Amino acid sequence: MNHFRRIGALRRKITRAGLSGILVTHLPDLRYLSGFTGSSAALAVTSRAARLFTDGRYTAQAADEVEAAKVEIVPGSPAVSAVQWLAAQPGATMAGFDPAWTTVSELARLKAALPAHLRRSFLAALPASLVEQLRRVKDEDEIAIMVEAALVGCKLFEHIVGFIRPGLREIEVAAELEYQARLMGAEAMSFETIVASGVRSAFPHGRATASLLPRKGFLTLDFGVILKGYCSDMTRTVYLGKPGKEERNTYNSVLEAQQAGVAAVASGITCAEVDEAARSILRRDGLAEAFSHSTGHGVGLEIHEPPTVGLNGSSLVAGDVVAIEPGLYRTGFGGCRLEDTVHITTDGFERLTTFPYGLG
Amino acid sequence: MNHFRRIGALRRKITRAGLSGILVTHLPDLRYLSGFTGSSAALAVTSRAARLFTDGRYTAQAADEVEAAKVEIVPGSPAVSAVQWLAAQPGATMAGFDPAWTTVSELARLKAALPAHLRRSFLAALPASLVEQLRRVKDEDEIAIMVEAALVGCKLFEHIVGFIRPGLREIEVAAELEYQARLMGAEAMSFETIVASGVRSAFPHGRATASLLPRKGFLTLDFGVILKGYCSDMTRTVYLGKPGKEERNTYNSVLEAQQAGVAAVASGITCAEVDEAARSILRRDGLAEAFSHSTGHGVGLEIHEPPTVGLNGSSLVAGDVVAIEPGLYRTGFGGCRLEDTVHITTDGFERLTTFPYGLG
Repeated sequence: MNHFRRIGALRRKITRAGLSGILVTHLPDLRYLSGFTGSSAALAVTSRAARLFTDGRYTAQAADEVEAAKVEIVPGSPAVSAVQWLAAQPGATMAGFDPAWTTVSELARLKAALPAHLRRSFLAALPASLVEQLRRVKDEDEIAIMVEAALVGCKLFEHIVGFIRPGLREIEVAAELEYQARLMGAEAMSFETIVASGVRSAFPHGRATASLLPRKGFLTLDFGVILKGYCSDMTRTVYLGKPGKEERNTYNSVLEAQQAGVAAVASGITCAEVDEAARSILRRDGLAEAFSHSTGHGVGLEIHEPPTVGLNGSSLVAGDVVAIEPGLYRTGFGGCRLEDTVHITTDGFERLTTFPYGLG
Repeated sequence: MNHFRRIGALRRKITRAGLSGILVTHLPDLRYLSGFTGSSAALAVTSRAARLFTDGRYTAQAADEVEAAKVEIVPGSPAVSAVQWLAAQPGATMAGFDPAWTTVSELARLKAALPAHLRRSFLAALPASLVEQLRRVKDEDEIAIMVEAALVGCKLFEHIVGFIRPGLREIEVAAELEYQARLMGAEAMSFETIVASGVRSAFPHGRATASLLPRKGFLTLDFGVILKGYCSDMTRTVYLGKPGKEERNTYNSVLEAQQAGVAAVASGITCAEVDEAARSILRRDGLAEAFSHSTGHGVGLEIHEPPTVGLNGSSLVAGDVVAIEPGLYRTGFGGCRLEDTVHITTDGFERLTTFPYGLG
């Protein structure tokens, strides 16, 4: 990962925004810019320098991971030290912070740590996150990791399809999946593994429980792995036993909606257009009310990151990686969801998750 | 769990604080008060009513989980709906919010959603979280679950001690541990499993990597499970091969410090006194500089929650559950940490993690 290049790009944004510096505290932003993977740190960047503040637990780790910023170990709050350092730089006038990742308490603490004459004016809420804009456009190194993570996800799905049988507890399915994920090198799962069977498949976020897989019914598996910090995300619904006509129709509506959503993805297209491409299929089939969430979301160092592929006018850009995941949820009947992760390129898109579809 | 009683206790605090209502958005607080386990919701409580706002993904789940508050499904931000509802209650004057769990952006959005004449005055930052005070004092139901979670942690440790051998990858140890945890009913791990062997044991937060367990060296295992929402937390360091004198001395210093820390725990004792009880042993042995973090932390619905057992004057109270975990980290040599989770009672304490100590 070229952290020098990323911090350089941030520097140009800082200068263009008329700021003397920026405070970065959101951990995935920190990791993106510096490579640091610890749980407590703050990064201060000016047009001339970058410094990462962390605590004594991370002395060895920060020295090992961080090249593009100078590391300083501090006894108290890393963010307080970072702001004080920013304010002490020659010519410091105003530093930006990200209001979406700064709590009201934290801002009060940061202001109180500044010299009195700077308390009102020095810290400025950024109207839009400067780092988020950089992170949306995944570079080659990032895409290579995300391709690898998606491949692990597909291999896991193949394994688990051979493993499932009626009578297993959902939690046993999750256990097997997560065990194999670890052996395939996953650092962790990207989110709590969803294994939702039978009537529980009507829960969009049905975490694995002690329920037994039924002889007959939907089974939704939604899971992802983290490789080198990057998340994979894929969902497939299968059917245990032989599906009836209504089950087939429900599945086919979701499949068609998902394919339409993926096909709509392109640089310059708005999120609302992609959402509508999927949703209109379900509306045509009289099922739109059973699709109770937005069509998708960005994926990267976080499992949910911008853009939200829903009713908003923001446009997709080349470099975005988005998950497209329409579903139908009918209480007492069950539910289906299909999800693929897609990389948007300058001239189209590339599907990272390539596992086949099908009910059985 | 008696959610009616918990919301009742919060109501009395609201009245005493001179507020007409309170907005709760921190998810563990929401779960504590209402039983709701979804990933997006807001709870509004007044002296007369409690209402939980969530989105369409959680219609069935909220109906299933929530008894002590009326549930309302909303299309947009649950917190915005909650604040608008609070402002529309008869006699509404001022609602508290928790500044430690509200971002600067979110507060601006909430204020903008209020009628113009209420924007400046209606939302008040609480000087201390009212829910946190309730959550610190664990009730019988909670302690019963935490005892069970700690027992699962101990069983897992016993299993893994029989599993480890030189040449295994750290990640295989983590995989086996997490697999068995799932089979024992864990919903998830409380945090990323730490398996830090050889020189990596000098990393306080050494997540499992592809490194091989050495023939000779420390191995620190720090992990926890989540049962019914509650976290367990325990650390043991063992030695692969036969420890030398310096290894034994290091281990014995940590063991003595940890026992001193646990022995100091009691209702009315300050966090700083407990921290000093552990730290002074390491200082006596000339090793205080290699202990680079605070002595412990509260545990409950979150793996780290108040109180912080470090250099602060806040007192422990009966009902607190705290993890006491001194460690020593020596770059190039290795490290040790021992951690137990302790429940503070009116007349002493009860150790929840009962696995024995010992280097081998």
